[in-house]
Amino acid sequence: MTKPVILVTNDDGIMAPGIRNLIHFMMPLGEVVVVAPDKPQSGTGHAVTTSNPLRLERILKDYPPLEYSCSGTPVDCVKIAVNKILKRKPDLIVSGINHGSNSSINVIYSGTMSAAIEGAMENIPSIGFSLLDFSFDADFVSAKKYVISIAKNVLKHGLPKGTCLNVNIPAVKENELKGVKVCRQARANWEENFDHRQDPSGKDYYWLTGEFKLHENNNETDEWALSKNYISVVPVQFDFTAHKVIPEIKSWNFNA
Amino acid sequence: MTKPVILVTNDDGIMAPGIRNLIHFMMPLGEVVVVAPDKPQSGTGHAVTTSNPLRLERILKDYPPLEYSCSGTPVDCVKIAVNKILKRKPDLIVSGINHGSNSSINVIYSGTMSAAIEGAMENIPSIGFSLLDFSFDADFVSAKKYVISIAKNVLKHGLPKGTCLNVNIPAVKENELKGVKVCRQARANWEENFDHRQDPSGKDYYWLTGEFKLHENNNETDEWALSKNYISVVPVQFDFTAHKVIPEIKSWNFNA
Repeated sequence: MTKPVILVTNDDGIMAPGIRNLIHFMMPLGEVVVVAPDKPQSGTGHAVTTSNPLRLERILKDYPPLEYSCSGTPVDCVKIAVNKILKRKPDLIVSGINHGSNSSINVIYSGTMSAAIEGAMENIPSIGFSLLDFSFDADFVSAKKYVISIAKNVLKHGLPKGTCLNVNIPAVKENELKGVKVCRQARANWEENFDHRQDPSGKDYYWLTGEFKLHENNNETDEWALSKNYISVVPVQFDFTAHKVIPEIKSWNFNA
Repeated sequence: MTKPVILVTNDDGIMAPGIRNLIHFMMPLGEVVVVAPDKPQSGTGHAVTTSNPLRLERILKDYPPLEYSCSGTPVDCVKIAVNKILKRKPDLIVSGINHGSNSSINVIYSGTMSAAIEGAMENIPSIGFSLLDFSFDADFVSAKKYVISIAKNVLKHGLPKGTCLNVNIPAVKENELKGVKVCRQARANWEENFDHRQDPSGKDYYWLTGEFKLHENNNETDEWALSKNYISVVPVQFDFTAHKVIPEIKSWNFNA
């Protein structure tokens, strides 16, 4: 049996501790290939680079895994890996481990998850992993066994067409983790605040800041699971159609 | 009765003919405020700017509408307009008119639609408009009456919580437009191709190119409607959860 090919990417950049840990977790499971951004790309959403060309740099030519840094976004990394670098379609794409949460509405801003969603769009089983700790020296090892177990499950079962997984991990010690909960995206939003400043020449500028506002505490949501020290697993789809709403809009008069 | 406040934005930049036309279409409907990117931001997806500060420039101080160019993404424009510039929540956000299609899977890459989705996330009725013509001198006027009719309908009825509209317009003459079809996002993807070149110093670079591949021809889809010269209206949601898939993933064993 040939080993599965596992593509690893992220949005914090190829030298972030989160992806370095994820590479080590994946190496026993298959042949790992890394194609990740050459610089941090947090909050890039599903951006693609079409106005500039992409650059690839081969890193560490003499040891596995095969690693490339790419000048583009996480979505660019998946596209160029699948269509240019890899000789065959990967069996699994893992993105992360992100430094910081991508639960709830954060999925929409997330470069980590955009890579996983792009993988699903290319019909490749894909997972985005995120740890609820923004710091550079976050502890990624506590959740190692669950990260591996989730990846093994996806390698074994595949994923339903048109979906990928959004996995978030509480930032607690290994013995405090309660296990895995499959759940849905909680309803929440960000309340923005703009920090208004003046540069040395007196011109205005604004820093985007904000506060996360959770609108429910339902035990079927990722936020609830995380608050109870469970690892949350949300299946995510790229059909954005609000199917239930179609009949209502159909009743409008567009000739008025 | 006070006039509705209408926020206009886009992803092609504040000087693109698409937004200049949209501003003129909206001015009879309410008090128009424009906050749009100072440069093209196509394909930015739902990107936000957090590593750099944002700059705002007030344009045309002496005539309506109130216009600002912003150094950020379409999502940044909505956030700073709603939270910093406008004195009250707008009654409507319109984004576009995009130069080029945002139908089907293009919704996920689209800066035009990310502005509308961000509006929905802030509980503001929001519409993204796109014309199926990439060219600078595209004919935006043929669809004027439908753009106005759709905006009036949304002002009158509002939109169901958690949704916005993705409107695409065929690039045909006014008398060839057959009307409006409310539909769903067609299943399709992009098959990428990387145009591999070398720069003058002999280093490799890659241009992302691709071909749109449609996987169905169902008459309930936006692609079908557009091919028949209908304007397509797809309600879009930001709950990305693949609800139907949850039971299957729940049956997996994460302790193996």
